[in-house]
Amino acid sequence: MASDLYIIVIGCGRLGAYLANQLSSAGNAVVVIDRNERAFGNLSPEFSGFRVEGDAVESAVLRQAKLDQADLVVATTRKDNVNLMVAQVAKVVFSVPRVLARVFNPKREEIYRRLGVECICPTTVAAEIFLRATAARPAAEAVR
Amino acid sequence: MASDLYIIVIGCGRLGAYLANQLSSAGNAVVVIDRNERAFGNLSPEFSGFRVEGDAVESAVLRQAKLDQADLVVATTRKDNVNLMVAQVAKVVFSVPRVLARVFNPKREEIYRRLGVECICPTTVAAEIFLRATAARPAAEAVR
Repeated sequence: MASDLYIIVIGCGRLGAYLANQLSSAGNAVVVIDRNERAFGNLSPEFSGFRVEGDAVESAVLRQAKLDQADLVVATTRKDNVNLMVAQVAKVVFSVPRVLARVFNPKREEIYRRLGVECICPTTVAAEIFLRATAARPAAEAVR
Repeated sequence: MASDLYIIVIGCGRLGAYLANQLSSAGNAVVVIDRNERAFGNLSPEFSGFRVEGDAVESAVLRQAKLDQADLVVATTRKDNVNLMVAQVAKVVFSVPRVLARVFNPKREEIYRRLGVECICPTTVAAEIFLRATAARPAAEAVR
């Protein structure tokens, strides 16, 4: 894992907090943004990064998090529209070299990609894993 | 992929419908259960399986879907509690050989596993993929 990056994680839900914890333990400088202060409770006690309370769709909040200096931005809120908007701003306005976004609706992946945003769709990923699990049935059942 | 199984998919949202479509095209006999008839609109026109409208937490609905004859049950509703309950019933009451369940809260995975249910948590899976994506940054950025 990379260990010397300035990384901004948008959204401190289960996914965002997990990533922030892992990326922080790996030695990166991590800033987490969430509009709900209580969400920071998902961070581990060892998290050594910064917390910014605010709505990431507001430029002032992104500037406070120093998005212009970020090596990587990861958008993980529950709302595809928010992730899309923030990812677009990170790319276009703040020239962030690498932007990853969670997108629940795979139909929007194409829009993200055109903007240079890498998308990860949990539903698609889970579907592929379910399909593989279906194929890998135990031998005893394979001969039923 | 397995192609001669009797498979029951609980929940016809994006994940359930995707799995039902794929498993049906692969030649399996597939039954999809959803309590909302409109959810079946997610199925592809080529889907050759059966639709059962009803709440999967009701045994009568599961009997209608012939759960006792299923080789595989996949629980994909949005509610962990529903997936847990249906998976448990499939295992214990209907003796289904293989049961897969989506679980959003990874803390519940242990409970499922003890019941012999295989769990797939989209959040955990997405997190791992995000972390790998973070590590695999382009060479040009690696030397910044």
